[in-house]
Amino acid sequence: MSSSVGQTIRCKAAVAWEAGRPLVIEEVDVAPPQEMEVRIKIHFTSLCHSDVYFWEAKGQQPLFPRILGHEAGGVVESVGEGVTSLKPGDKVLPLFTGECGECRHCKSSASNLCDLLRINLDRGVMLNDGKPRFSKDGKPIYHFVGTSTFSQYTVVHAGCVAKINPEAPLDKVCVLSCGISTGMGAALNVAKPTRGSTVAIFGLGTVGLAAAEGSRISGASRIIGIDINPNRFKDASKFGVTEFVNPRDHDKPIQEVLVEMTDGGVDRSIECTGVDINTMIAAFECVHDGWGVAVIVSLPNKDDVFKTNPMNFLQERTLKGTFFGNYKPLTDIPSVVEKYMNKELEVEKFITHRVNLLDINKAFDYMLRGESLRCIIDMDA
Amino acid sequence: MSSSVGQTIRCKAAVAWEAGRPLVIEEVDVAPPQEMEVRIKIHFTSLCHSDVYFWEAKGQQPLFPRILGHEAGGVVESVGEGVTSLKPGDKVLPLFTGECGECRHCKSSASNLCDLLRINLDRGVMLNDGKPRFSKDGKPIYHFVGTSTFSQYTVVHAGCVAKINPEAPLDKVCVLSCGISTGMGAALNVAKPTRGSTVAIFGLGTVGLAAAEGSRISGASRIIGIDINPNRFKDASKFGVTEFVNPRDHDKPIQEVLVEMTDGGVDRSIECTGVDINTMIAAFECVHDGWGVAVIVSLPNKDDVFKTNPMNFLQERTLKGTFFGNYKPLTDIPSVVEKYMNKELEVEKFITHRVNLLDINKAFDYMLRGESLRCIIDMDA
Repeated sequence: MSSSVGQTIRCKAAVAWEAGRPLVIEEVDVAPPQEMEVRIKIHFTSLCHSDVYFWEAKGQQPLFPRILGHEAGGVVESVGEGVTSLKPGDKVLPLFTGECGECRHCKSSASNLCDLLRINLDRGVMLNDGKPRFSKDGKPIYHFVGTSTFSQYTVVHAGCVAKINPEAPLDKVCVLSCGISTGMGAALNVAKPTRGSTVAIFGLGTVGLAAAEGSRISGASRIIGIDINPNRFKDASKFGVTEFVNPRDHDKPIQEVLVEMTDGGVDRSIECTGVDINTMIAAFECVHDGWGVAVIVSLPNKDDVFKTNPMNFLQERTLKGTFFGNYKPLTDIPSVVEKYMNKELEVEKFITHRVNLLDINKAFDYMLRGESLRCIIDMDA
Repeated sequence: MSSSVGQTIRCKAAVAWEAGRPLVIEEVDVAPPQEMEVRIKIHFTSLCHSDVYFWEAKGQQPLFPRILGHEAGGVVESVGEGVTSLKPGDKVLPLFTGECGECRHCKSSASNLCDLLRINLDRGVMLNDGKPRFSKDGKPIYHFVGTSTFSQYTVVHAGCVAKINPEAPLDKVCVLSCGISTGMGAALNVAKPTRGSTVAIFGLGTVGLAAAEGSRISGASRIIGIDINPNRFKDASKFGVTEFVNPRDHDKPIQEVLVEMTDGGVDRSIECTGVDINTMIAAFECVHDGWGVAVIVSLPNKDDVFKTNPMNFLQERTLKGTFFGNYKPLTDIPSVVEKYMNKELEVEKFITHRVNLLDINKAFDYMLRGESLRCIIDMDA
């Protein structure tokens, strides 16, 4: 056992002190894990659009100071009382949503929306005592989605920690804890395109490209990428995208364009923009009658209303949503890591940038400028 | 071959001369079948709510004079050029939607929306020459959904005629050509409730009761029937309904009532009212997050808009529509008849009334007063 067990650890973390202002690298105190908690040394983390969204705090209750970050890989430093599934030294991915193993959702093969550990966007404290484990000069610093991986050490509920292959390189597989699994799972687990089918992917960021990759792995032969940013078309063919449509090049609704391009509609569509309710509606209305399935991946805005003519359903179209690609976080994510280990899935092509912790704000700049897919942040450097 | 082959047949038919006025029993002329058509002697027909809806002609283009009727059983009298799948003497169910066998829909295992022979509510003529086969005193009488079974003889496209077990009693299995198969298929083929699950059925008419029956056959243990007509609760338990909810007994939205009754929502819901877009929305919003599937069966009104908060999808709910219970009319309906023949499915409990052709308007009265499920009309008496 390390000498830090049971002790507060002082380490570096990137703290968001207020909405939209650059993160500040601080020395913070990380309390030991309590009952059913795990303290993890984070080696690599990556930046996801949700971190930026909550840092900007335009759409939800602001909570600051906060340590963001939820895509990461690390090693268990110590475990709290009652934790039997993990031990110090285990290589792990902390996850923004969990699996208690006991509730109806965990017992259902269809759901990953655990009653106890389902993502909570507002909570900035740990479940056990309602307090954060982070502090600076005795003042609390709040958690983010139970992970807060922009810290060299973090405390996470054991039900939100997936134990992975000890051989897995953390600077690669850290990106599998959110966006890539979300997109891949939306294709492989939910849309399930058949061999030779046509898939429309709305939004060619990391999630959309992962959905394209999942569609390609499923054997889809025509993968149509839709984005308003033509820069995103350049590299998308590496992810299986075979055609590109920019809604701005057309003067009619994009669903009509797609229906014409595909003689009646696509077989599957996957909505990964998270921008606009009209894109969600278009993603549904562009699928073929008789068999078309549309999958919504992106979080809508708070007051959005989904509207469509109900005949679109009667003509045997299906609309489904997915959360985290329908992967159960502890049960399934280790197998996604294995897909990388056995070279089915190339994560390298998603990793476009790499910075040290001290330069974490650069990762935000790359994403805000639309230049990066995933930027790895080296927490040890 | 009968001596009528190639000749016009004069027979009795119930003609709708104008919207909402009692049908009139007339002697009509039925021309011989043309290419790919079949002339059928109808022995029994039954009244479905869609006949009443198009007779009232409140929601769509009125087309009169017209011979309604689309649930029926009969025997092939003669076949037109090119028909190889049927021969005189075959026992058949004419169907309001068809299967050409050649289009992408017919070749897809998921769809029953044949490009050529899909239901057409506006067309009152045959495809081959754009004319009706019915006339009186030389003046045309229009068809209804390609079947027009309120006539002792009718002409139907061969792709809309299912050949069934020659032992099947037509006065029973005639009811399987629309509503009962629609409801049963919505449960068995689309909602697919699992053993022990909870299903909500909106609307306890024939289609809803058939959906309940299908849910019961699937092993659902809790089947909640929702209707504003409490008379419908009386016999619904025969069809597997275990609980009843009347929205008029509650002062909050029915979806909230159901979510409370079921600790988070039902596993499956099936909407069979065809009344109100809000019922469709309720049927979707009452399903459980994580795994809930809602199936819409009823035709919406023309200008209805389906509206919901998109988070309902993101929480892993699925919304699907179905047409004719996803049964392929020629491929699958004979097997539904077999379900009756081998006593899996009891159709007798759906048959509440029986009249002779001369009294066909009584069947309309029974349905309009909400007294009947299915009224069999004996075309030979």
